[in-house]
Amino acid sequence: MTTDPDRQPPELPDGPPTALDLPPADPLPEDTAKYFAVCQDKLGMVPNVLRAYAFAPEKLRAFSGMYNDLMLAPSGLTKLEREMIAVAVSSINKCFYCLTAHGAAVRELSGDPKLGELMVMNWRAAALSERHRAMLLFAEKMTERSHKIEEEDRDALREAGFTDADIFDIASVAGFFNMTNRVASATDMRPNDDYHAQAR
Amino acid sequence: MTTDPDRQPPELPDGPPTALDLPPADPLPEDTAKYFAVCQDKLGMVPNVLRAYAFAPEKLRAFSGMYNDLMLAPSGLTKLEREMIAVAVSSINKCFYCLTAHGAAVRELSGDPKLGELMVMNWRAAALSERHRAMLLFAEKMTERSHKIEEEDRDALREAGFTDADIFDIASVAGFFNMTNRVASATDMRPNDDYHAQAR
Amino acid sequence: MTTDPDRQPPELPDGPPTALDLPPADPLPEDTAKYFAVCQDKLGMVPNVLRAYAFAPEKLRAFSGMYNDLMLAPSGLTKLEREMIAVAVSSINKCFYCLTAHGAAVRELSGDPKLGELMVMNWRAAALSERHRAMLLFAEKMTERSHKIEEEDRDALREAGFTDADIFDIASVAGFFNMTNRVASATDMRPNDDYHAQAR
Amino acid sequence: MTTDPDRQPPELPDGPPTALDLPPADPLPEDTAKYFAVCQDKLGMVPNVLRAYAFAPEKLRAFSGMYNDLMLAPSGLTKLEREMIAVAVSSINKCFYCLTAHGAAVRELSGDPKLGELMVMNWRAAALSERHRAMLLFAEKMTERSHKIEEEDRDALREAGFTDADIFDIASVAGFFNMTNRVASATDMRPNDDYHAQAR
Amino acid sequence: MTTDPDRQPPELPDGPPTALDLPPADPLPEDTAKYFAVCQDKLGMVPNVLRAYAFAPEKLRAFSGMYNDLMLAPSGLTKLEREMIAVAVSSINKCFYCLTAHGAAVRELSGDPKLGELMVMNWRAAALSERHRAMLLFAEKMTERSHKIEEEDRDALREAGFTDADIFDIASVAGFFNMTNRVASATDMRPNDDYHAQAR
Amino acid sequence: MTTDPDRQPPELPDGPPTALDLPPADPLPEDTAKYFAVCQDKLGMVPNVLRAYAFAPEKLRAFSGMYNDLMLAPSGLTKLEREMIAVAVSSINKCFYCLTAHGAAVRELSGDPKLGELMVMNWRAAALSERHRAMLLFAEKMTERSHKIEEEDRDALREAGFTDADIFDIASVAGFFNMTNRVASATDMRPNDDYHAQAR
Repeated sequence: MTTDPDRQPPELPDGPPTALDLPPADPLPEDTAKYFAVCQDKLGMVPNVLRAYAFAPEKLRAFSGMYNDLMLAPSGLTKLEREMIAVAVSSINKCFYCLTAHGAAVRELSGDPKLGELMVMNWRAAALSERHRAMLLFAEKMTERSHKIEEEDRDALREAGFTDADIFDIASVAGFFNMTNRVASATDMRPNDDYHAQAR
Repeated sequence: MTTDPDRQPPELPDGPPTALDLPPADPLPEDTAKYFAVCQDKLGMVPNVLRAYAFAPEKLRAFSGMYNDLMLAPSGLTKLEREMIAVAVSSINKCFYCLTAHGAAVRELSGDPKLGELMVMNWRAAALSERHRAMLLFAEKMTERSHKIEEEDRDALREAGFTDADIFDIASVAGFFNMTNRVASATDMRPNDDYHAQAR
Repeated sequence: MTTDPDRQPPELPDGPPTALDLPPADPLPEDTAKYFAVCQDKLGMVPNVLRAYAFAPEKLRAFSGMYNDLMLAPSGLTKLEREMIAVAVSSINKCFYCLTAHGAAVRELSGDPKLGELMVMNWRAAALSERHRAMLLFAEKMTERSHKIEEEDRDALREAGFTDADIFDIASVAGFFNMTNRVASATDMRPNDDYHAQAR
Repeated sequence: MTTDPDRQPPELPDGPPTALDLPPADPLPEDTAKYFAVCQDKLGMVPNVLRAYAFAPEKLRAFSGMYNDLMLAPSGLTKLEREMIAVAVSSINKCFYCLTAHGAAVRELSGDPKLGELMVMNWRAAALSERHRAMLLFAEKMTERSHKIEEEDRDALREAGFTDADIFDIASVAGFFNMTNRVASATDMRPNDDYHAQAR
Repeated sequence: MTTDPDRQPPELPDGPPTALDLPPADPLPEDTAKYFAVCQDKLGMVPNVLRAYAFAPEKLRAFSGMYNDLMLAPSGLTKLEREMIAVAVSSINKCFYCLTAHGAAVRELSGDPKLGELMVMNWRAAALSERHRAMLLFAEKMTERSHKIEEEDRDALREAGFTDADIFDIASVAGFFNMTNRVASATDMRPNDDYHAQAR
Repeated sequence: MTTDPDRQPPELPDGPPTALDLPPADPLPEDTAKYFAVCQDKLGMVPNVLRAYAFAPEKLRAFSGMYNDLMLAPSGLTKLEREMIAVAVSSINKCFYCLTAHGAAVRELSGDPKLGELMVMNWRAAALSERHRAMLLFAEKMTERSHKIEEEDRDALREAGFTDADIFDIASVAGFFNMTNRVASATDMRPNDDYHAQAR
């Protein structure tokens, strides 16, 4: 068991969160500073995606507003289901940041470490319910060839028990990670190292 | 010149904005009603994307917050440049809604109807400046294979004169339309008919 | 509303029709000169694709012979249907010339400007008859993965009411635009500016 | 060495040339009958592509006119070079008809059976001159993603010694086989069995 | 009929079998020398793939062991069926070595030269039995997008009469050529010239 | 933290290793039984890939022979480098079995859990040496489009310090996992649950 000498050392917790030279607003506006303190308190860290937006607090507010509505607000989808969509989409787009952070969330929310790995690696290898299979098939088609979605694709979700409001949420979450995956890759966004060992 | 009998009649201005059965909140919250009134006043219509979100005013607020920051707030990118990215990305994803609405915006902002068509059809056929070519090459790579973006791709933007804050904005706009293209296609979102004839 | 200073001025009507340095035969043979005069008279312009071939009148004759047979001769397909195939194929291949010229033809022949946009942007977003949907599905498969066409694909056309002669015509038109899209892109063929405003 | 019982017997020389029920014009027009007699005399067969068009003599004339100009008329490209393009394009599109007929032509014109196989299987495995490599790279890009062709692609041909007229011919031949490959696959066009053993 | 002056002369039978500078072990171990002598005796040549591995006799033994088990040992699949899979897979991967060597094997084993060409060019153009069609559809999906294989794909093979042991063999042969195709292309492995004329 | 009721319970350690009904030879041949006992002793488990082959001990011997030569025998590549190739290839092919088993091996051999995640998720996000970057670029091209590999690709490896024997090993390992990824997905091969928690 040898260390690979070619690998760089782990990022310091306060290293830059992306490859862009965009230092955080200094001082942080009060609401942002408070938000980060809450993160540190509840999560033990400030997720780097938030640190990445800290150079422009109004962008951080817009991003957080959308994220919180999609992933945390009441919905016909459980939080775990929303995280499963997040990871399945991120697997297609091969986004290191989102696979790391949301893979951990799937492990945590499900209490099933293997489920997190399955979403990262290949959701088809999981023994999923019909509901979850339909949900991920739709998210996959949205990711790979959204322009070919037709009414029969929406009907497949309805047949699996989803309401039209649920379909809107599936579409919104799958769409959102098609955004963040690309922003993260475009800026070389780096996930906090803490995620890797969480909920294994 | 004959009418194709197979085509359905044009959507009524108050027809459903998507294929989902999600009627607007009734009554609309005061801020939403006011926002729609401003749209009607300034644009002559309420864009259907806003009507699509009106079933859930808090989602509408989150979406509008992000949209307005990205497309309308001060930036090192002109509004036209942001619309050019929007359309070039939407062309790859073949999103009818976004190509229609933002193609009109490119025609309007540039005063050059042909430029709008070029962004919709194939931006490489346009005689673009090096700056705009670099910008659209990056947005294209983000759309087609974001996981292969590397430092040399960001450096190409820097060499074309973009700052790191500009790169963040290019990434954010290209990312955003990779989201909205997919949400629009997933829900069969229908653009207002008015766009087609605008700024021709 | 500002003009983008990076855009080049519109092509002069007698600017070169492609990026290749191939001036027209001088003088034009009598039949070619007459053909161009008829175009000018009936269409108000000589389409640039014809000007592109004018360096080699025998090539122009061969091309026109095939074009006229496919697009204008009697067929079980209406002229509009043939133009719909032309544009749907050109949308996949992102051919600026053909989308511009034949998008205008769809608008003109249908009297429905929105139908032209739908063919350019994403035919699946159009509310098409079963006949037209089957026709465009076949043309799309021919364009994207012709080697996987099987008898069941032809049978789907027969079930939609097409005869075997119609199938030959659908295949011929879809095939033809897979040729011209590529020749136009390979030579940077430039559509006449007049098309953009036609039949809006 | 056993015969596979699942294979159907070889096509009779007068079996239908495609999967479409389109019997030849009866009687054939005089010029067509004469053309077929010349083929039989010089080639020992009437190529099935001509028989496929015989249901509509005017279509046959248009197709032959274009084919003969492209493949047989004087050009800066040798006939062998045009056939090499034909086969390299057909290999990408996996067209059984064109690979069979034009693979035989490459073997025949070059006197090098292995060259025919290389064009059918993978032209990159051939030890080609810079000229031929540039020519096939351009034809390949036209076939796979024509919308991304730019001036630098044309310049690569110029640097390899091709004139602008030659570039037009390369584009025309590569374009033509992108048409015929698709028409052949769409109609299940069957090559004459004689080709397989020719010039081995 | 002219020779193309740009083509290099045919490889000498003792020219290097790949683009890598890896001369054979000297002397060859006894078992390898004997194996090569048997090949020469029975096939009239030592296949270049074996010569390519001769620099490392233990790698040759491992490769031959796997090859012989897959292609020559008793199986529910005939040897011809295994060769059909080999060629259909190699056609997708465009491997010159494997298409040449195993195309010859299909011609030889079937006594049907056209069948060999069909496997090389496009197996869908062959008039195959349901059994063979199911077999090649599975091998194709394994080659193009193995991560999307599901139980219904295996069930399609069972319905076509294959046992689970047969499915293992189909998977193993299709997998094996996805390996050798890539190794051959990665090393520019060159098939013996003798294959081209065999069993025509 | 709730358990998802839709997930099936974890596989029993003696559950079937694939979706195929192929029970192990009974009794196992002596060499196989001994091999499995050694695995159990040294690894704490018999890897399911070996159990999957146990229905046909001669196939198990052929597979193990090749595997052991490639991954464990002396080579210019370290064992970690070979595992990195294995995982990077498996990431493209989205093979759950290989990503799980060999992702664990990268974590174990490197002592760097994050490196294992990077290979699974997106190797481009890792801060790799030029040597490792060149190695994985070659393996990636072999996996995605091996038919386009040319001498310049091999030269890039030579410039990164690899010998021709090393190139053979890179090609062999990348090729091998393009086989096993497909066989694993084709048979729904299930990794031992123990891997998930190893070396985190």
